[in-house]
Amino acid sequence: MENLQDKLKAYHITFNKPELLAEAFTHKSYYFEHKSSSVFHNERLEFLGDAALGFIIVEYLYKAYPDEREGVLTEKKISIVRRESLADFSRQLGFDQFLKLGNGEEKNGGRENEANLENLFEAFLGAVLMDQGFNAVKNFIYEVMIPKIEDGSYDKVTDYKSALQEIFYTAGHIDTNNKIPLEYVVVGQSGPVHAPIFEVNVEFEGQVIGQGKGKSKKIAEQDAARDAFVNQKKQQEDR
Amino acid sequence: MENLQDKLKAYHITFNKPELLAEAFTHKSYYFEHKSSSVFHNERLEFLGDAALGFIIVEYLYKAYPDEREGVLTEKKISIVRRESLADFSRQLGFDQFLKLGNGEEKNGGRENEANLENLFEAFLGAVLMDQGFNAVKNFIYEVMIPKIEDGSYDKVTDYKSALQEIFYTAGHIDTNNKIPLEYVVVGQSGPVHAPIFEVNVEFEGQVIGQGKGKSKKIAEQDAARDAFVNQKKQQEDR
Repeated sequence: MENLQDKLKAYHITFNKPELLAEAFTHKSYYFEHKSSSVFHNERLEFLGDAALGFIIVEYLYKAYPDEREGVLTEKKISIVRRESLADFSRQLGFDQFLKLGNGEEKNGGRENEANLENLFEAFLGAVLMDQGFNAVKNFIYEVMIPKIEDGSYDKVTDYKSALQEIFYTAGHIDTNNKIPLEYVVVGQSGPVHAPIFEVNVEFEGQVIGQGKGKSKKIAEQDAARDAFVNQKKQQEDR
Repeated sequence: MENLQDKLKAYHITFNKPELLAEAFTHKSYYFEHKSSSVFHNERLEFLGDAALGFIIVEYLYKAYPDEREGVLTEKKISIVRRESLADFSRQLGFDQFLKLGNGEEKNGGRENEANLENLFEAFLGAVLMDQGFNAVKNFIYEVMIPKIEDGSYDKVTDYKSALQEIFYTAGHIDTNNKIPLEYVVVGQSGPVHAPIFEVNVEFEGQVIGQGKGKSKKIAEQDAARDAFVNQKKQQEDR
């Protein structure tokens, strides 16, 4: 972990308890292959880091967008804390090379796995919280993540297909193949042949939850996802 | 709000900006009937308070249960922050009588509505955060909520039917009647007539997601809900 500690100095972070840092970088597959090791795997720290991150981002959004409604803030939050962005931060920070994986997990591409890298990033935040306190986590997030939010990296395109996935994923709706059973079905086409308009439904377990239109199938799918996303949020708000 | 401010003194809270407190106690139905009022409704504060509460409870659980796995901590968290408990806190604190509702909402029983009271409690936490800072929210939660957690109010019975509802609810799976489409179906009965064993499946949109057994239908339903809950959590963890 020598190199990692050096790397963290750039963020003014020096761990008092390096074992917390080691825990954050230990995937459970490694732990189960080295049970005699005194270092636990990173799931508990990930649970903690996830909650700290959620709160810090929410507080930031609340203050940064004083005129936006809750629905808009929720949407922004989802696009910021979604798996792909957090995994990207792990990669950008070079955390992935320090992740300890079991042999099987390594062979199966666990070092590039988005979920592993997301969890690693969150577990790291949890470790910083326990070792350095809340302000250190907040400073780190404001140094590393907030500038990317402010330069608009997260709102160039709201990827509603991902946002919709996230809602269903959070509820554990993944099938036996680890996929979320959302399907995009082309249900109609109109307009002239050279300028067609596609109609797409998004279905969850056979039930239509959103409808969209667009000049391409891709655009129509995003439009359907947006419709479904708004419907789901509205149901939550109207309850 | 005079009485409310007095009430809060018992918790060492005196608002510098009473308008934040007023916002926390304004339901959107009231806001839409009094649009000329300068006070906004409480959805933004609820968004903020929800995240602060989540983080504070998670941090507490992480420290209080150093030997528990993430799955157990998540389960505890869900039982603590679930709607019914938070609504109960609003009632115990006497917040419900100060909630500003529109006429229609009042007539429809909005003052007893669990969602309204949950949102009120969270919005109050958000207002304390903005007015008094993070430590004030934490102190309040440690004074009001944590003792109830420590006296075991939340783990006497883990109500898996509610915990399962919560998972699906969070994802916005509510039907047009504002219900979560989870069904408990008796699929078998065995054993002697005087000591039957019931078999129950829990279904989500027609698909079996958990199976249970028990000496009564009620016990079998809880057992099926526990099975489904564990399956959902496992899918999330194994991804």
